[in-house]
Amino acid sequence: MDMIGKPARSSDMKYFTWLVLLAQVFGLTAVVLVAVWMGHFQQGFAWQSNPGLEFNYHPLFMVIGMIFLYSDAILAYRVFRNDKKMYIKLLHAGMQITALIFVAVGLKAVFDSHNLKKPDPIPNLYTLHSWLGLITVILFGLQWVGGFATFLFPKAGMATRIMALPHHQFWGIAILCFAAATACMGITEKCIFSIKDYSQRPTQAYVANFLGLMIVCLVTTVIYIVTRPEYKRPPAPEEDHVPLEEN
Amino acid sequence: MDMIGKPARSSDMKYFTWLVLLAQVFGLTAVVLVAVWMGHFQQGFAWQSNPGLEFNYHPLFMVIGMIFLYSDAILAYRVFRNDKKMYIKLLHAGMQITALIFVAVGLKAVFDSHNLKKPDPIPNLYTLHSWLGLITVILFGLQWVGGFATFLFPKAGMATRIMALPHHQFWGIAILCFAAATACMGITEKCIFSIKDYSQRPTQAYVANFLGLMIVCLVTTVIYIVTRPEYKRPPAPEEDHVPLEEN
Repeated sequence: MDMIGKPARSSDMKYFTWLVLLAQVFGLTAVVLVAVWMGHFQQGFAWQSNPGLEFNYHPLFMVIGMIFLYSDAILAYRVFRNDKKMYIKLLHAGMQITALIFVAVGLKAVFDSHNLKKPDPIPNLYTLHSWLGLITVILFGLQWVGGFATFLFPKAGMATRIMALPHHQFWGIAILCFAAATACMGITEKCIFSIKDYSQRPTQAYVANFLGLMIVCLVTTVIYIVTRPEYKRPPAPEEDHVPLEEN
Repeated sequence: MDMIGKPARSSDMKYFTWLVLLAQVFGLTAVVLVAVWMGHFQQGFAWQSNPGLEFNYHPLFMVIGMIFLYSDAILAYRVFRNDKKMYIKLLHAGMQITALIFVAVGLKAVFDSHNLKKPDPIPNLYTLHSWLGLITVILFGLQWVGGFATFLFPKAGMATRIMALPHHQFWGIAILCFAAATACMGITEKCIFSIKDYSQRPTQAYVANFLGLMIVCLVTTVIYIVTRPEYKRPPAPEEDHVPLEEN
């Protein structure tokens, strides 16, 4: 972080592509592991006709939305560094709207699976997982609206954007970390509640634990990539001399 | 983050003291909550004579070591910004050695509580909490040794230090995040295993869940403080013109 301000050189970029590929490997492996865990070891998927199986959409859709799509939406600014900034903004916002759709369905699945449970419903929102998860999703939604209003809505001035950018970046990363911690707690809960011989380390336990490690590896790699100063998007000529003191 | 390189002004520091105080409030509240949870709701502490109560040292000592002391060790560089750098390095390393002592006793407590359980021992290292926790403690130890060899051991040259610093800073923050995620999983496990009416939200459930939220708030505040460019330590005159290209 003390290298900040050092001019980017092409030699600095040598590991960039490998790191982005590594993030994709971690992310895709996480999606495959959660799909195999829910689809195979937890008896697959159903909707409201079978609330027990409806639950299984929850981990799958939250990992796709809050972890994988969200990670790649953050990386878009680094991967498409040489494209027009407006296109990347639309991609960044579009990927996160897609993520929010997955998240909405994933939340509907877990509330249904609790409320429709027979003979008695399961209580909602009593675990730390559910508290931090709800906070994370609300912050994610607020961050999307705030980001849209500041960086895409045509009326917001450049001074506002310059003031808001470091906060948008900080909270973007913080919310991703909250999502990862929430996912790890969700995996822990599901393992304890539904793998009867978890302590004997059956195959399913390895699938679940490696899912957690893949999420941690993905988020660590994404944050490493976006915080390295030499991987930052070079400013376009028209962005060069924005007066920082305007606000 | 785009404000990086902007010179620090005294007006930029107006929230700094409040943020550091806020971090202390979050950290001390977390320590008090885990002490109350284990000391009152989980029947207090014992050593090997009562492995069930010996366990209770594990959350207490891990929160003190890996969360509270570790956070303040990271903040030391910002709080004592105007003191001699060697003193701060010794304080930073010393606080983390103290943290490692708490961690060692905290780990001994959990392994004892599993291995000495009557009539049958509890298996070790099967949960995601234990896997990520072990990885976190190993990384914390390696980071300490690497930091000592690079920044305190007199023989390491300035070029090595300049090259290593951003990596030491990145991993310092990453390991703190891993510790927080591990703590959240540990809280989740302990709640499910030992609060029989967790889903009815007894007082103990609030104590445990708020402990998790305090840890998340502490770590978020600490990372905000250390990544804001205007809160960075001003370089001493002799550090001003270190040639960045030397390595």
